[in-house]
Amino acid sequence: MTGFDAVAPPDAEAAAAARTRHDQLTKPPGSLGRLEDLGSWVAACQGVCPPRQFERPRVVVFAGDHGVAAAGVSAYPPQVTAQMVANFDAGGAAINVLADAAGATVRVVDIAVDCAAPLSEPIGAHKIRRGSGNIAVEDALTDEEVTAAVGAGRRIADEEVDSGADLLIAGDMGIGNTTPATTLVAAITDTEPVAVVGRGTGIDDAGWIRKTAAVRDALYRSRRAGTDPVALLRVCGGADLAAMAGFCAQAAVRRSPLLLDGLVVTAAALVADRLAPGARQWWQAGHRSTEPAHAAALRALDLEPIVDLRMRLGEGTGAAVALPVVRAAVAALASMATFDEAGITP
Amino acid sequence: MTGFDAVAPPDAEAAAAARTRHDQLTKPPGSLGRLEDLGSWVAACQGVCPPRQFERPRVVVFAGDHGVAAAGVSAYPPQVTAQMVANFDAGGAAINVLADAAGATVRVVDIAVDCAAPLSEPIGAHKIRRGSGNIAVEDALTDEEVTAAVGAGRRIADEEVDSGADLLIAGDMGIGNTTPATTLVAAITDTEPVAVVGRGTGIDDAGWIRKTAAVRDALYRSRRAGTDPVALLRVCGGADLAAMAGFCAQAAVRRSPLLLDGLVVTAAALVADRLAPGARQWWQAGHRSTEPAHAAALRALDLEPIVDLRMRLGEGTGAAVALPVVRAAVAALASMATFDEAGITP
Repeated sequence: MTGFDAVAPPDAEAAAAARTRHDQLTKPPGSLGRLEDLGSWVAACQGVCPPRQFERPRVVVFAGDHGVAAAGVSAYPPQVTAQMVANFDAGGAAINVLADAAGATVRVVDIAVDCAAPLSEPIGAHKIRRGSGNIAVEDALTDEEVTAAVGAGRRIADEEVDSGADLLIAGDMGIGNTTPATTLVAAITDTEPVAVVGRGTGIDDAGWIRKTAAVRDALYRSRRAGTDPVALLRVCGGADLAAMAGFCAQAAVRRSPLLLDGLVVTAAALVADRLAPGARQWWQAGHRSTEPAHAAALRALDLEPIVDLRMRLGEGTGAAVALPVVRAAVAALASMATFDEAGITP
Repeated sequence: MTGFDAVAPPDAEAAAAARTRHDQLTKPPGSLGRLEDLGSWVAACQGVCPPRQFERPRVVVFAGDHGVAAAGVSAYPPQVTAQMVANFDAGGAAINVLADAAGATVRVVDIAVDCAAPLSEPIGAHKIRRGSGNIAVEDALTDEEVTAAVGAGRRIADEEVDSGADLLIAGDMGIGNTTPATTLVAAITDTEPVAVVGRGTGIDDAGWIRKTAAVRDALYRSRRAGTDPVALLRVCGGADLAAMAGFCAQAAVRRSPLLLDGLVVTAAALVADRLAPGARQWWQAGHRSTEPAHAAALRALDLEPIVDLRMRLGEGTGAAVALPVVRAAVAALASMATFDEAGITP
């Protein structure tokens, strides 16, 4: 069962107090723009104004392979997924470096990497299977696997919140994973494949045609799933996507603010907001990637990205680059002088 | 005399080495988007690849009053300028908080605040005069004052670079200062006032009409200055704007990377690129403000903002929020593992 507890909205009183305080700080009202909105959002999530600066932001990277990679939809071979998990573990990947620069730590979990044994016991503790099915021709998962994967993501969110994480970031790693992510977005937003299929890791025109065909075939198969989130994850998702969806949904249930990353995480979030209605209120979109399906998913969630830097890497990197902006918003709201304190009569 | 030494371009070899290294790092080529461009730019400015992380970023806020404030072009009375200088000195302003969050320090200089005595000896060491002239009806400065103010900005840049600053940010403070800044942009980009006059600190429609009239009158007076940067600063600029121009130009002469802030700083930079041709290669645009004249100035300098957060505060705050993105770009280029190091064969 993938039933989630009800999602309570962030604290409206704290948000109102933040807006009032913003107008008392030594600056023209509204002049910090989006920083004021973000500061109020953090206050609402924490239920206190002024909000506290984040002390333990945590990135969780969900790794998984996808049978559809065999259809030639990626610029890289599937074994790169396992190699990159080792790279995350060694601290050499972009997300390690960018999270560190933003004052966040990184955890990588092997949900469905196609390797004989997980890299280590902690990394593999929540593993569901070796790779998900090739969605162009078969279901990605069984119903039981969807339930297990969503539950794994939920448990990971619980583990992180219980360990003191005060802001969560979801990241992804998996060769071929933009193909199921794009299919999920197309299915949920009722969009034609050609309008949302992107270049992923950087495929050429022939690769794009193969990817579009795979998305079209998977989308055709998904029609019988309707809009049921569990059925969609089974037919055209994947274990890593299901775990990310469980993670994003449970973050909201646990009242933890969360920054979404690019296409893959946001596709999972689109499902998560159906698993746990209202969850989106606890999320901000870290960045806008160059993937067209990401834009469609953001529109469907009514989220505006914090930065737009033409990034398309995944791993949580776009959210990690956005994190200092959220920190700046908290700092301004918490630490600026008011007109009264500064003895200024505007 | 406002003659500047010739500006050398950033190091093309280091930039090429950075681009080569970006393609060897454990990510698809180009997938970090703008971060890759910024990393290469820092490498070129420092003349070394990989680049070094910034250790002493420095914000200098140039404070000055403007006679045109008497025309009712601002939502705040002129005495707020001096009060805000005290707020910067006490550490309570937005730029103090946001610079601190980004690992930068702040210096405020009184270039032309309309107060009897500068707040302190160091803050007033480069003071030119009490307020600049009302550009709607008279010149902002004499030729001698322009020379002195540009020279003050140049000396401040020298002081900072000689003290070890490895990245500079220019900020502004001055009630009414978007009126001369908008006039300078309109004069240099040959744009109609109505297309570039914005709301500044948040004026109402009547204030906007007064401001547009002031810009139109100042622009009419500026016609006789042609496009000579010194004449423009005299007729429709101000001492703080002239000092900022000298600061931005000298940063480039001294091979220091610099982040521009919003309208006022970017208007000064537009002048600076004429005082020291090629200086713009040493600058990045920190953010896009909501002021329409800022967009025109950025277009004229061919600079793309790093963030776009609907900010309109000045003080250097937009650049301070962008600084962590530049830091992230440096960190990725300097600290990520290469495919070889990670044992990955893509």
